[in-house]
Amino acid sequence: MFQCTGYAAQSAEAPLAPFSFERRDPGVSDIEIEIVYCGVCHSDLHTVRDEWGGTLYPCVPGHEIVGRVTRVGAEVTTFKPGDLAGVGCMVASCRECASCRDGLEQYCEPGFTGTYNGPEPQTGGHTFGGYSSHIVVDSHFVLRIPENLDLAGVAPLLCAGITTYSPLRHWKVGPGQKVGIVGLGGLGHMGLKLAHAMGAQVTLFTTSLGKEADAKRLGADAVVISKDADAMAALGESFDFILDTVAAEHDINAYLALLKRDATLVQVGAPEKPLPMQVFSVIWRRRNFAGSLIGGIAETQEMLDFCAENGITSDIEMIPIDQIETAYARMLKSDVKYRFVIDMASLSKAA
Amino acid sequence: MFQCTGYAAQSAEAPLAPFSFERRDPGVSDIEIEIVYCGVCHSDLHTVRDEWGGTLYPCVPGHEIVGRVTRVGAEVTTFKPGDLAGVGCMVASCRECASCRDGLEQYCEPGFTGTYNGPEPQTGGHTFGGYSSHIVVDSHFVLRIPENLDLAGVAPLLCAGITTYSPLRHWKVGPGQKVGIVGLGGLGHMGLKLAHAMGAQVTLFTTSLGKEADAKRLGADAVVISKDADAMAALGESFDFILDTVAAEHDINAYLALLKRDATLVQVGAPEKPLPMQVFSVIWRRRNFAGSLIGGIAETQEMLDFCAENGITSDIEMIPIDQIETAYARMLKSDVKYRFVIDMASLSKAA
Repeated sequence: MFQCTGYAAQSAEAPLAPFSFERRDPGVSDIEIEIVYCGVCHSDLHTVRDEWGGTLYPCVPGHEIVGRVTRVGAEVTTFKPGDLAGVGCMVASCRECASCRDGLEQYCEPGFTGTYNGPEPQTGGHTFGGYSSHIVVDSHFVLRIPENLDLAGVAPLLCAGITTYSPLRHWKVGPGQKVGIVGLGGLGHMGLKLAHAMGAQVTLFTTSLGKEADAKRLGADAVVISKDADAMAALGESFDFILDTVAAEHDINAYLALLKRDATLVQVGAPEKPLPMQVFSVIWRRRNFAGSLIGGIAETQEMLDFCAENGITSDIEMIPIDQIETAYARMLKSDVKYRFVIDMASLSKAA
Repeated sequence: MFQCTGYAAQSAEAPLAPFSFERRDPGVSDIEIEIVYCGVCHSDLHTVRDEWGGTLYPCVPGHEIVGRVTRVGAEVTTFKPGDLAGVGCMVASCRECASCRDGLEQYCEPGFTGTYNGPEPQTGGHTFGGYSSHIVVDSHFVLRIPENLDLAGVAPLLCAGITTYSPLRHWKVGPGQKVGIVGLGGLGHMGLKLAHAMGAQVTLFTTSLGKEADAKRLGADAVVISKDADAMAALGESFDFILDTVAAEHDINAYLALLKRDATLVQVGAPEKPLPMQVFSVIWRRRNFAGSLIGGIAETQEMLDFCAENGITSDIEMIPIDQIETAYARMLKSDVKYRFVIDMASLSKAA
């Protein structure tokens, strides 16, 4: 075991604060990473505040992790000390079920192990995430990070990037297709960049006026204010695919009505309350409503390589770790363009 | 024009009653059919009582029509007088849009013409359905009826049959698959028969005790009472496909949870009110929720031929047409095994 520093919540009510803890030394297939940057995902906040239930305290969140390899286990051939490395939402899975064998560890049948708040059999405790100085992860779950991209902007690709990339690929978005992205937050802004890079004609749907210029800079060909009933009606039955990133309550039927026959709307934002589904929205034109959860490890590597080829990173606001509670408060107001990333160098000063 | 007899509602409040009206003589591509049997679909009742809005009166419902050809237009080569013939939910479509070209007239972009309550450009009026002595339909929308099947039991295949056959085929149900059918009514009992004939292992989900023996006779390998939480939990993530035929409010999330990764639940029952959709139901395991509307003409013919090969008809209760209001009242209580069919020979006595 070795000593790490990080930020943890000690209870659902407590703010994140400096925390010293031990991590396991790398096993034969493990990689130890010194964390350089960690993105701030809404899931971090949900978990810290126990909004989904089941949070284990102390809770060290963070699953958009990039850094440099510091040690590798004896059997690790894929990384060496000094290499850039990334860790996303998963640090283990059964590796044996049909989903794992298909490279879809996110759908592991017994369940994948989250980068934080998951069981850690090596220590008998629970996993601690990326708001920390180091992390130790089985090499299967460690991603190669392209050297040509801005490292801080890469961090959010490990969750926001793969969460949008995976459905765009799975439903075969490409040139000649008309694709809608609903919502312009951390997920939505990645959806715009990725769908645009895949060659689709991309429309952003937003409730907010004044996002048009930014959306177009990020890859949108058109911007539609979703409250504008005339604009929405004019687009009926014209979309090949819609990616809905909105985690608040909203009218999915209004978006389903924009799909062509046999087309799919994929929801990646996860509203707490059920969304009202008008069955005629899907019976008409045999439409599909589907969900998608992050992406597998091989696909996450493919996404990082795709981003390297296309010069894609997340738009970020860098913060020192002692500003995390302020960042959470701003995130709750959607006041971030478009993802906070913690500069982990700030940890030594803050801890 | 020629004189027909039938049953019509004169308003949303009026009971169905004898009605004399004119139909067009067959045009060059039309077929005139003397109707022998007409199935009774819940849509008939919704339309007669204007429950969906937009009903044009007098309203002659009925879109599960079988009979004998009496006259054919000069250009008709596919049927001759004396042939058995069937008509389902559609009597026209644009024949030019992408859906029509793909043989999916039910998704015709300008909209298909319903067998009743649709526009009829030939007369300037609206279409009258199968609760009548004759019907005149463009030959493209007339189905060949296998001679080896009980004719009265064929009638419901034209709506209940194709509505369940089409999604089972589109989502490629077949041997080795575990398929769920939700609800045992007109649609559900056809779903059981068809999915069983396609070689799937079929489970019926029902809220009612006491349907087990009948469901097994109809093709179910297993019957699950959907209120039994333990039985439902034991089936989690085990189904390849679920066809939900329930038109009342119900918990679709409980059924989505039974699907394997990437599997689909198709809703063909159309509840009036929106169904609460828990987004995690689809995000988890990347599941799909879809709809499906009847089927195209070519697929309806394929379904009839499939039923002929497999000896499949609907289980019916035959009624004379003057019992239609009683039949509606029983249908509203789901008190029918499993579809009412009107013996049109009763029309001459009743009219």
